Amino acid sequence: MVIIMTPTADDVQLTAVQDKLVSLGFRVHRSRGVRFTILGAIGDKTGVDQRALEALPGVQSVVEISEPYKLASRTFCPEDTVVNVKRAHIGQGVTLMAGPCSVEDEDQIMRLAEVAAQNGATVLRGGAFKPRTSPYSFQGLGEAGLELLRRAADRFELAVVTEALEPDHVPLVAAYADMIQIGARNMQNYALLRKVGRSEMPVLLKRGLSATLKEWLMAAEYVLSEGNSQVVLCERGVRSFVDHCRFMLDFAAIPALRQMTHLPLIVDPSHAAGRRELVIPLALGALAVGCDGLIVEIHHDPKSAQSDGPQALLPEDLARLARQIDRNCAVSSEVG
Amino acid sequence: MVIIMTPTADDVQLTAVQDKLVSLGFRVHRSRGVRFTILGAIGDKTGVDQRALEALPGVQSVVEISEPYKLASRTFCPEDTVVNVKRAHIGQGVTLMAGPCSVEDEDQIMRLAEVAAQNGATVLRGGAFKPRTSPYSFQGLGEAGLELLRRAADRFELAVVTEALEPDHVPLVAAYADMIQIGARNMQNYALLRKVGRSEMPVLLKRGLSATLKEWLMAAEYVLSEGNSQVVLCERGVRSFVDHCRFMLDFAAIPALRQMTHLPLIVDPSHAAGRRELVIPLALGALAVGCDGLIVEIHHDPKSAQSDGPQALLPEDLARLARQIDRNCAVSSEVG
Amino acid sequence: MVIIMTPTADDVQLTAVQDKLVSLGFRVHRSRGVRFTILGAIGDKTGVDQRALEALPGVQSVVEISEPYKLASRTFCPEDTVVNVKRAHIGQGVTLMAGPCSVEDEDQIMRLAEVAAQNGATVLRGGAFKPRTSPYSFQGLGEAGLELLRRAADRFELAVVTEALEPDHVPLVAAYADMIQIGARNMQNYALLRKVGRSEMPVLLKRGLSATLKEWLMAAEYVLSEGNSQVVLCERGVRSFVDHCRFMLDFAAIPALRQMTHLPLIVDPSHAAGRRELVIPLALGALAVGCDGLIVEIHHDPKSAQSDGPQALLPEDLARLARQIDRNCAVSSEVG
Amino acid sequence: MVIIMTPTADDVQLTAVQDKLVSLGFRVHRSRGVRFTILGAIGDKTGVDQRALEALPGVQSVVEISEPYKLASRTFCPEDTVVNVKRAHIGQGVTLMAGPCSVEDEDQIMRLAEVAAQNGATVLRGGAFKPRTSPYSFQGLGEAGLELLRRAADRFELAVVTEALEPDHVPLVAAYADMIQIGARNMQNYALLRKVGRSEMPVLLKRGLSATLKEWLMAAEYVLSEGNSQVVLCERGVRSFVDHCRFMLDFAAIPALRQMTHLPLIVDPSHAAGRRELVIPLALGALAVGCDGLIVEIHHDPKSAQSDGPQALLPEDLARLARQIDRNCAVSSEVG
Repeated sequence: MVIIMTPTADDVQLTAVQDKLVSLGFRVHRSRGVRFTILGAIGDKTGVDQRALEALPGVQSVVEISEPYKLASRTFCPEDTVVNVKRAHIGQGVTLMAGPCSVEDEDQIMRLAEVAAQNGATVLRGGAFKPRTSPYSFQGLGEAGLELLRRAADRFELAVVTEALEPDHVPLVAAYADMIQIGARNMQNYALLRKVGRSEMPVLLKRGLSATLKEWLMAAEYVLSEGNSQVVLCERGVRSFVDHCRFMLDFAAIPALRQMTHLPLIVDPSHAAGRRELVIPLALGALAVGCDGLIVEIHHDPKSAQSDGPQALLPEDLARLARQIDRNCAVSSEVG
Repeated sequence: MVIIMTPTADDVQLTAVQDKLVSLGFRVHRSRGVRFTILGAIGDKTGVDQRALEALPGVQSVVEISEPYKLASRTFCPEDTVVNVKRAHIGQGVTLMAGPCSVEDEDQIMRLAEVAAQNGATVLRGGAFKPRTSPYSFQGLGEAGLELLRRAADRFELAVVTEALEPDHVPLVAAYADMIQIGARNMQNYALLRKVGRSEMPVLLKRGLSATLKEWLMAAEYVLSEGNSQVVLCERGVRSFVDHCRFMLDFAAIPALRQMTHLPLIVDPSHAAGRRELVIPLALGALAVGCDGLIVEIHHDPKSAQSDGPQALLPEDLARLARQIDRNCAVSSEVG
Repeated sequence: MVIIMTPTADDVQLTAVQDKLVSLGFRVHRSRGVRFTILGAIGDKTGVDQRALEALPGVQSVVEISEPYKLASRTFCPEDTVVNVKRAHIGQGVTLMAGPCSVEDEDQIMRLAEVAAQNGATVLRGGAFKPRTSPYSFQGLGEAGLELLRRAADRFELAVVTEALEPDHVPLVAAYADMIQIGARNMQNYALLRKVGRSEMPVLLKRGLSATLKEWLMAAEYVLSEGNSQVVLCERGVRSFVDHCRFMLDFAAIPALRQMTHLPLIVDPSHAAGRRELVIPLALGALAVGCDGLIVEIHHDPKSAQSDGPQALLPEDLARLARQIDRNCAVSSEVG
Repeated sequence: MVIIMTPTADDVQLTAVQDKLVSLGFRVHRSRGVRFTILGAIGDKTGVDQRALEALPGVQSVVEISEPYKLASRTFCPEDTVVNVKRAHIGQGVTLMAGPCSVEDEDQIMRLAEVAAQNGATVLRGGAFKPRTSPYSFQGLGEAGLELLRRAADRFELAVVTEALEPDHVPLVAAYADMIQIGARNMQNYALLRKVGRSEMPVLLKRGLSATLKEWLMAAEYVLSEGNSQVVLCERGVRSFVDHCRFMLDFAAIPALRQMTHLPLIVDPSHAAGRRELVIPLALGALAVGCDGLIVEIHHDPKSAQSDGPQALLPEDLARLARQIDRNCAVSSEVG
């Protein structure tokens, strides 16, 4: 950590800051410039609040050097983590997750599970508890939806990923699913993160609507610090000023996270796009940039879907995407 | 609602959309242009998912006309709502809420409650359960903090507002506090919104980090639709690209919300500013724009505060702010 | 265009709006709902200012249906435009443009032109007039830089693209270069757009730092409306709150623009990334999403580059990128 | 400047960075931590490109300590600058600038100049050269508009501020106006900045749509470094994701700029609001936060205005705003 003092800071203030740093377990190097004095604090800063130091009189700013997350960091674990969810090995090759936005009825989920399985997906997605902006919108089938998901997944040898909206959902979701999704709105729902951290379930952690990579990894750290190391990150786009898509997918996050963390990373092009015709291009782009897989929404009859119909791929779209992925993977494995 | 068809939409598609609208209870007006055909859907759209209509073949876009929230809307309730919390009448005159970021110990909260009371505050704020980005940071004193808050508030005839982080906290917080705060990270934590909606407690609903006004009012609607009409909105800044403050206060939201909703609105300049010297200017600005009050962080010794010290006002700062508010209010009542 | 009247609009206001629309050459359809009345304006709105209509008493909002740009629109010209710049056919296959941020001296530009040519680039980029945030930074070699660019390009059979910063530069740049670049900061420098519009030079129009797609196409329209139809768009990232890259590349803009315009589109991953290790992943992603080419910065000795060294690819990086592009193109042409 | 080396940087790299810093005229302090080594570079960094240092092998990041602007900085000039434009003393008390978006005809500008003068404005604004998103929109009356502005201002003893869109406009605008405006789109039009920097005219420099404060002050530095010290900054809102106003006014910029610069700062609430009913609240807020004045759009007949009618204040609105300003100023001068 580097502490930069204001040009007007006096010796009393300088000494006070130095003493505070020493009391926190740091060794301190002082370097005095013409206008500015800089203190280098050497030692482990996990648990030290940078803003507490900024409040000291005479401090202009505090620059973090090492990351505030620990278990999630590449430094802590240099090897890539692979999260296994039944036949899916997320972090090794390309994993495809597909399914409807919401589970609607048995016929729907059976059809779509079949479509998913036929096109190389190993994980079935589907919402049973839906986070909806409006209290008057369809909120999902709840436990009945979980049952249907399980049956459909079992019939086609798929794993199930589905969202838990609140801590009390976790045991129920864990009873039916193979992986628990934490949605974007809940990225900083700490009670929920802790609860899934104490479960033994793989976790799919979506990025918050306007989260920095650091905030996102700190959310992962909540799960990891409870003892659950099976966390998969999911980029789903951030809020921006543009109006041609719902959220802006942050492709640079893919290589940037590779340097920062050992956790696998998949991309959700469906929610970001908001409309079908953008989904496949974004999906192919995300794989080319280097993510570990995709989670996409599909529907056989989008016009009667109970949520997010406009962004659902049709079965034939998924087939097209799958063919393209196969071909690209074939090339990269040649390229090796 | 207005449905705009693509230039290539054919009659079969047009009829299908029209039939769908009729089945949802709308009357439909069709207006055919040179390139575009437009359908006006007349009727109550509460509970109708706009995106479901966008998924219909031939639909280019759907324009909402009436608001998707109902109980929160000015149309539903033309009179301004006043939320009473002990001596505070939020929505009538200027309400001042003040206190530390976190309750730290008895001495601290007693001192600060006194400072708050002496300077015209009627509500004491203070965190007992703290949402922290890092799992390794101080997480608050929990119930012990709630007890201290209550004792301090009682001694100085203040009301207590404090945050509940999860549904399970609600009964506990309700037992000690007079108003429950929902933090920015939890603006779309629907289980929590529903739980406070079923309590009989006034609710302080902070705006999410990148929420639109519509999304924010929809979050309020979750509380209102459970039967709790005592909701106060709190603008606390949104995420932006700038680096001279932590969050950008959205001052235009104040008059814009006045037109949209009957709910009172206060502003939190402390979290937005992130540093002390910006807090008073922003506070005075927010009142001049027309909000119903302020919630500010204070600390008698910010350099040893356990969280957010850099943005806490000193007791003398609060006194200065209070004097300024008094004078301005005197003027406006003259102006009347 | 659809005009939505406020619920309180009266018949006098309604008639006034209707008359105004008729005077602008529109036919008008009126559809009256329970709370809202809607006017559909049918006709050509090019040149009609939507905001002028919003100022009429009783108007709540105006919804545009057809695009405000004309010559740039896909409707106007359904076929993809190909812009030919010497051996480069932009809009047909993948075009690679490469070169240094700034031209520094003869040795540098000759080396880098050779590297570019050896790796499949057909266009040499390089700044002679540099737009710099600081007046104290290196501002480019000016005409001497243009001469060096020309000589280097000629030796290796490349075309030259370079930036004109002001209208007065245009004839000079046109005398040496094959394509004129309009930088992001100048996307709405209308005098400059008009000047290049009146030249007969192909134009590379970068997207402004926070421009919507519509604003960008309107900027293109300034060039096109002066009679110059050779415009290539260049996505270079938009400003956002994130801190892991300089600008956020908007990948969804690629398929979205395909629907909106016939103009070719290339991507600049170097400025968006800001650091070398993100450039190749983003470049491959952009091609997979479907853009028509790339413009990348290269340097043989980035540590002594006079500008933007951290984001420059090394010669061996460009070779790696070129091999990858070749392989991917081979696949797509198989896939056909 | 502080240079942070990567954990894997070796001694050769360290020495190379140190040598480079020394060659740039810095003294260097080295402080070696457990994982990171930090170099403090002491000396004047004006003109040193931070990114050039980031390109050196082994450098993780470079932290600026002193500001990159010089003449604009508070350090350089601790006293507030006052810019005098006829009777207006910008930076001393509250300056009010008012007038139409565009000059339309003699009757309009005469009426509005009278309204402005009657309500305490000392500067008349009005566009003669208009930057329009669309090439098909009204582009202003040009020199005829300048003449009308001058006549109207003279009749009512006002100063004239009007925009120059390109370097070639500067002499013409200077011949008629008292202050030259640089619009938001041109904040980084360096040729234009240099040209007004070489004129002897006061300059009103609007903030770019997504400019940081540092970038804005660097733009001011372009003008100042040419010898023109009469620069007034104008905050006019930045691009954001919200849809209830056109641009988000950045109120925190007001106190933040006070610390950074000695230049006066006014606020334009009209363009930010985009609709009349938000303008007065934002105007009063901006003054309460502490800016030096306002520039507002007025029109006696907004529904027939040729541009931006929806945001123009009516004459009676301006009178109301003026009364409110008077009263508030009376209070603050009492408060002293």
